[in-house]
Amino acid sequence: MLETLDLKARLGNKAFREAMDRLELELPILQRAVFEHDIPVLVLFEGWFASGRGDSIGQLVHHLDPRATRVHVTHASSEEDRLRPWQWRFWRCTPPRGRIAVFDRSWYYLLWNQRDEGTIDAARWERELQAVDEFERQLVEDGTALVKCWLHIGPDEQKRRLKAWAKDETQRWRVSDEDWKRQRNYPRRQALAEEMLARTNTHRGPWTLIEAEDENHRRVRVLSAVADAMRRALEQRGIHAPTPEELPDAPVAGKKLKPIVATDPLKTPPVIPKDSPLSRADLSRRLDRDEYAKRLKKGQARLRELEFLCYTKRLPVVIVFEGWDAAGKGGAIRRLTESLDPRGYKVVPFAAPTATEKAHHYLWRFWSEIPKDGHWAIFDRSWYGRVLVERVEGFAAQTEWGRAFQEINEFERSLVTHKTVVVKFWLHISPEEQLARFRRREQSPLRRHKITEEDWRNRAQWPPYLAAVTDMLRQTSTTHAPWTVVEADDKLWARAKVVETVIKAVEARL
Amino acid sequence: MLETLDLKARLGNKAFREAMDRLELELPILQRAVFEHDIPVLVLFEGWFASGRGDSIGQLVHHLDPRATRVHVTHASSEEDRLRPWQWRFWRCTPPRGRIAVFDRSWYYLLWNQRDEGTIDAARWERELQAVDEFERQLVEDGTALVKCWLHIGPDEQKRRLKAWAKDETQRWRVSDEDWKRQRNYPRRQALAEEMLARTNTHRGPWTLIEAEDENHRRVRVLSAVADAMRRALEQRGIHAPTPEELPDAPVAGKKLKPIVATDPLKTPPVIPKDSPLSRADLSRRLDRDEYAKRLKKGQARLRELEFLCYTKRLPVVIVFEGWDAAGKGGAIRRLTESLDPRGYKVVPFAAPTATEKAHHYLWRFWSEIPKDGHWAIFDRSWYGRVLVERVEGFAAQTEWGRAFQEINEFERSLVTHKTVVVKFWLHISPEEQLARFRRREQSPLRRHKITEEDWRNRAQWPPYLAAVTDMLRQTSTTHAPWTVVEADDKLWARAKVVETVIKAVEARL
Repeated sequence: MLETLDLKARLGNKAFREAMDRLELELPILQRAVFEHDIPVLVLFEGWFASGRGDSIGQLVHHLDPRATRVHVTHASSEEDRLRPWQWRFWRCTPPRGRIAVFDRSWYYLLWNQRDEGTIDAARWERELQAVDEFERQLVEDGTALVKCWLHIGPDEQKRRLKAWAKDETQRWRVSDEDWKRQRNYPRRQALAEEMLARTNTHRGPWTLIEAEDENHRRVRVLSAVADAMRRALEQRGIHAPTPEELPDAPVAGKKLKPIVATDPLKTPPVIPKDSPLSRADLSRRLDRDEYAKRLKKGQARLRELEFLCYTKRLPVVIVFEGWDAAGKGGAIRRLTESLDPRGYKVVPFAAPTATEKAHHYLWRFWSEIPKDGHWAIFDRSWYGRVLVERVEGFAAQTEWGRAFQEINEFERSLVTHKTVVVKFWLHISPEEQLARFRRREQSPLRRHKITEEDWRNRAQWPPYLAAVTDMLRQTSTTHAPWTVVEADDKLWARAKVVETVIKAVEARL
Repeated sequence: MLETLDLKARLGNKAFREAMDRLELELPILQRAVFEHDIPVLVLFEGWFASGRGDSIGQLVHHLDPRATRVHVTHASSEEDRLRPWQWRFWRCTPPRGRIAVFDRSWYYLLWNQRDEGTIDAARWERELQAVDEFERQLVEDGTALVKCWLHIGPDEQKRRLKAWAKDETQRWRVSDEDWKRQRNYPRRQALAEEMLARTNTHRGPWTLIEAEDENHRRVRVLSAVADAMRRALEQRGIHAPTPEELPDAPVAGKKLKPIVATDPLKTPPVIPKDSPLSRADLSRRLDRDEYAKRLKKGQARLRELEFLCYTKRLPVVIVFEGWDAAGKGGAIRRLTESLDPRGYKVVPFAAPTATEKAHHYLWRFWSEIPKDGHWAIFDRSWYGRVLVERVEGFAAQTEWGRAFQEINEFERSLVTHKTVVVKFWLHISPEEQLARFRRREQSPLRRHKITEEDWRNRAQWPPYLAAVTDMLRQTSTTHAPWTVVEADDKLWARAKVVETVIKAVEARL
């Protein structure tokens, strides 16, 4: 199969930009459709070492909603993994309905190496290739959209890339003796890969073979493969997701969409008490677009360096996002993660707890998501729900949310004792700005789904939320885990502040 | 604190038997009450090496319903554990509401060793003792009944026990050089333990110090501590759980309890088709009590040996229990596990899937519970729900349960490829016997809760279940994972057959 690939394939910059512009519009539409229709999506990347898996995954996840996407990195099997069939570790990471799981290498990588190193014999190899087919068929028949990408480069190109990395001080760590050995054995490994690909190229789990020597070509092929698979899965269910052309983002001139709620339920805008930390937030802060672009670019480059430094120094980072509805959490998280290696961070969104979660202490589900050393975890809403929504809506009794301030301080102190960097953001906007954003969302065909009656109900609760936020900021801003109130009436200002605050916090600990 | 213990404390056999008889009645009543009232119970065992933790945990879990009990063994931290604060691994094992988690050693063991070995300094030791207090307070304030048992033996007794083990070929593996070194450092370790116990003996998490040189004394003290804690937790909520005296098991003479359902909904008992594997089950099989007692005793002793052999040879075992309602699954599981070391097996009960589980492939929740090498997992109901209840009740479409036979065979084959022993039981009773058991349960104050209207509704579905069971047995009885139909109209026969079948299956693979 691999010999059919034209490794000379190139994509010019103009064609690349056009294709990417289209995919940038299309992928979010498709992702929203698979989310709404409960379709799980599993995308796996295999291929040669140094073929650009990391960059491909980065490109992909930056076009997806991080709250519905998880990246799983397949390292060599751990002790725990080896104590069970290989399927165990992968089954646990299969995406739930509506979500996307991206695998940086997978079961193929393990099998390929085991056979290459001779730790499994020919009979076991046969049996496991069969088991791979079974595993994939079970997922696909259950509704999973499965995308298998093989990134292909020739032996000369691979050698060239390894040499370039070995010369570069910041990249040298990537290349191990093992990688060089495998490079030398390219022909033997290719023969094995050929067999593996041919055997597992089923109609339920077909391979997408991608020429990966040209970056432009590879990127477009990867994003297209994922978009096509999502569209196919939708069409198989008789669902037509609109193409970018069919769904203009701008409101159609002269044609107004019906508001979700006709009159603003927040009659008199609440006054922020003088002693609230929010009163010191100057919401008139603005950043012009040029200044923003400059600072963001600089900040993102530094973030990428810091992510790598945290990895080598085994420093974990926890970043918490809380804020008013429509304050711009999603946009800020996107700018924060845009330049990061998706294998080094995860975004963990939290909504109402499930039944299983409710059967435990409220901190249980957050403990289970804390990052391991060297990794970043970004919490899109968090344990602060206990003293915000649970308090305001009465889901927690006064004694429960009352003692939560102490419990949260203790929890965060435990993280910091374990050398974790903890950064917490409250994204602050005025009630007037929130109203304007709600109304704009209502008029945008592409973003109207982001505003519901519940958001309007929450808006009516602004005064009790204001009291809750004030208490929260006062009682849980500690030396080891301080809050940063982000003035967010201007999105550009807010995003730049978020990026730069994270940089400062991490630098202070390195 | 430890100097207050009278290590000479002894309990005579008669007093021991009396105390145990009472606890045997009381513990299930209390467990049911904490289950019904959603109280999580966390019992941890700490103390000296060779002080009898394993035996204590065995005694405890054999008086509890294994379906609501989980045993967690705390080994030295793994790589994964060390990448996070120590609380992480323990938070994940905190019991959900209504369930009991038993810890064979815990956070104390880790801290004690770290301080003894000097891997944490005095300041960190202080900080972590504080963090222990915080962790326990958070759980207790959230409603957890926390029981902390310290099993105490003197240095001479410890030395005597280590020597005895070292001499015994079957026990020698238990004692490492590290254990001997710690034995020699008893005085220093005792001073540290004293400090640790004193610092963490809080009113929310008090220690129960138990003289553990006399087995009788230790056993009764352990079970009483757990019973007392459950009763206290109930009383704090104003709930009085009946004492054994207050709730006679036998129906009160002349006073009949109201049946849950007046008339049997199963009008005509279904006829088993001749080609069904069930038709070959001879339900007249009986075992007299003496013969049963003899065979059970012999079988249980062998099971214990086999469990240990599986552990040393790293062989995993999966045992599946399916059967008609009231066929005696619970009783059979209890006899099977009675003699086993609770640290080597787990009982995993399955009811209707949660929302999270429903968002995944139906095999997902079973994959995540498969045992690791050397351990046994007993599934009380299983993946066969797909072709039984989900088929009969229409929760799965025909295409879904139709392809499940193949999926299940593939799943079990993957387990067997990974050298797992798979044993599957269908506990078979006649409709007449089921009716008699339902009626007896209705009249038993202690067991009436085991029969609900749903059980009666299921009984009315006997004919479609019969068809489903027949298909299941035919299509999923494979060479590598055969079904055993257990004639269960006589409970003694059924239990002996279960125990002996497991023995044969495991022996065949060793």
